[in-house]
Amino acid sequence: MRTKVAIIGAGPAGLFLAHLLARAGIDAVVLERRTRDYVEGRVRAGVLEQGTVALMAELGLDARLRAEGLVHTGTNLAYDGEVFRVDMAALTGGSAVTVYGQQEVMRDLFDAAEPRGVRIVFEAEDVRPEDFGGSSPSVSYVAGGVAQRLSCDFIAACDGFHGVGRAAMPADVLKVYERVYPFGWLGILADVPPVNHELIYANHERGFALASMRSESRSRYYVQVGLDERIDDWPDDRFWDEIATRLGPEAAAGLVRGPSFEKSIAPLRSFVAEPMRVGRLFLAGDAAHIVPPTGAKGMNLAVSDVAMLADALRRHYGDRDDSGLDGYSARALARVWKAERFSWWFTGLTHRFPDMDPFARRMQVAELAYIRGSQAAQTVIAENYVGLPLT
Amino acid sequence: MRTKVAIIGAGPAGLFLAHLLARAGIDAVVLERRTRDYVEGRVRAGVLEQGTVALMAELGLDARLRAEGLVHTGTNLAYDGEVFRVDMAALTGGSAVTVYGQQEVMRDLFDAAEPRGVRIVFEAEDVRPEDFGGSSPSVSYVAGGVAQRLSCDFIAACDGFHGVGRAAMPADVLKVYERVYPFGWLGILADVPPVNHELIYANHERGFALASMRSESRSRYYVQVGLDERIDDWPDDRFWDEIATRLGPEAAAGLVRGPSFEKSIAPLRSFVAEPMRVGRLFLAGDAAHIVPPTGAKGMNLAVSDVAMLADALRRHYGDRDDSGLDGYSARALARVWKAERFSWWFTGLTHRFPDMDPFARRMQVAELAYIRGSQAAQTVIAENYVGLPLT
Repeated sequence: MRTKVAIIGAGPAGLFLAHLLARAGIDAVVLERRTRDYVEGRVRAGVLEQGTVALMAELGLDARLRAEGLVHTGTNLAYDGEVFRVDMAALTGGSAVTVYGQQEVMRDLFDAAEPRGVRIVFEAEDVRPEDFGGSSPSVSYVAGGVAQRLSCDFIAACDGFHGVGRAAMPADVLKVYERVYPFGWLGILADVPPVNHELIYANHERGFALASMRSESRSRYYVQVGLDERIDDWPDDRFWDEIATRLGPEAAAGLVRGPSFEKSIAPLRSFVAEPMRVGRLFLAGDAAHIVPPTGAKGMNLAVSDVAMLADALRRHYGDRDDSGLDGYSARALARVWKAERFSWWFTGLTHRFPDMDPFARRMQVAELAYIRGSQAAQTVIAENYVGLPLT
Repeated sequence: MRTKVAIIGAGPAGLFLAHLLARAGIDAVVLERRTRDYVEGRVRAGVLEQGTVALMAELGLDARLRAEGLVHTGTNLAYDGEVFRVDMAALTGGSAVTVYGQQEVMRDLFDAAEPRGVRIVFEAEDVRPEDFGGSSPSVSYVAGGVAQRLSCDFIAACDGFHGVGRAAMPADVLKVYERVYPFGWLGILADVPPVNHELIYANHERGFALASMRSESRSRYYVQVGLDERIDDWPDDRFWDEIATRLGPEAAAGLVRGPSFEKSIAPLRSFVAEPMRVGRLFLAGDAAHIVPPTGAKGMNLAVSDVAMLADALRRHYGDRDDSGLDGYSARALARVWKAERFSWWFTGLTHRFPDMDPFARRMQVAELAYIRGSQAAQTVIAENYVGLPLT
């Protein structure tokens, strides 16, 4: 089989890229190790930046998003029992974020794939990018027990943190930057109305908490937990008590409890691999970088990566201009590092660190008090939260 | 001897307070352990916030400041060999800072003391605040070998980090927050024109550097050094080479070298003691808090403390209203913590930490790159640098 762009992975990065290339008339094939149901079922991010929403609209895939997504023009910070709101729209000239689960995004992208000629090979096993240092790369894989080869011009590895794309890059070329945080997020989903119509990020002596949602009847709550804690330690009652305490009386007023139907613990990590291109192999999304979930940048970064990559490929095929491909890594990384910084800073502002001394704790509180009173500091949060431009 | 307010220490905090009280007709006496020449000769801060300049003007002590001070409407940040300017005046609606050495401020305050009836006892030894828990406090001291007692209504301890004021407070009442940084600043004074008409704060792989000045013909330069380094390790030539490297080719273009006439190493510390009042004993300035010099907040914080304290004492004596005195500690600390946060953050942004991993270094660079492109982030720097309001 032959194509122009072989895309490894049918997560958000891979499928957005496939749709963008299909629209540009550039032939591509997506190789996905799992089934559609598995990929679509993964519980992940749920807050879309302005630019991600715009890309869905550009692709004409925003009908359900417009109908069901919750537009948030502000977000809230709680500390020491107090809550204040950052009016993102007012501070950014009208930008907002939209709550719309990654599962919904994936469903929209998958539903539109076949009608638009986006080719996806599911259950492609043992995928390997090959010969990407030369001019004739290919991806080998096994489908239905039969070894296959997909010849291509370029390979886009959109295969996540544990994927084969980054692993295939020569170790002496890659530089890796990493921070593993000494805690995780215990998250639940429950079919109860959210405590607030917008998100609440809470810094409490006992640790971070986040009140989020998937819809007006489905709540998503998180509490920071130690890495040694197990889900079994957290029956629903304990979770509800803890989230109420950490949000504080004002923010937790009206909290509706109910049985959780999903409960999991996720570690927090910052990670960046440089460069994002070696020869004809390009990395995008989690394959190249991971952010802690504070600030909801993960999926949005995957989308901005592939928007830049699709643009570069369009210029290559349409204009015989390779400057986009040559500049992809630097351009993508410039935005990635800013989002890494925001996610790292926002995590540091709101979480309890095991080695925190009283001075460090007071710095958090002083910063929150300063932000509360400073339009400039709130604008910093707002412009990062809605998403920095794709410069 | 009897007075209304006994002020311990004739540094900036003590002398500003004495002048403010003199102007309000409130009798006060300043007890200073050293001579005027010693106090005035100490090489200290040199950047005055908008509010500090305003207070000098309010006191009618700004003639020389207006004539000789250098008004800076912007400041500069350098990293990775690049420099960018933060236009503070444009971002804050016209605020600025003024370069005018603490030595000059002290001279103005001392010169005006006698004409205005500000009483200062120099070389007052063995000063001790007493009975400040009750209604009849006093300060005992030794002058000219003779034991003396100054009876008063209130004691203002403006006697610095190592002073007797904080030490006299009951240990079970005081809470102390502290951060000692693993490096110091090696500073020089030299009679050469400054490399730039405004300050340059530089983050370099080899460590922090700062290009500052006292006048158009007197430069003040600093480089971050290890705590184990000695002044003898830094002959002038080495210093000039190092500052040129750290500022980078663009910022160091036109650097004029010359013999230094002052060279010293200062450690960096963040420190806050709470509360700033016990009974009739009040702390102000370095007696209660220390900031690292990055951002030049130290003397300015002393000034805002005593502006609040003078206001509270005026209301006590003038209006029989004690709410200012009762609220002094909380009001002063609210501003102190924000300045502590700014100084700590600005130190963290610009210095090389011994335990920094590559990720932490990239976070500094990413933050500087973000600030460079964000008006909001530059406004955060600007509004803190010119000084937050005295709310």
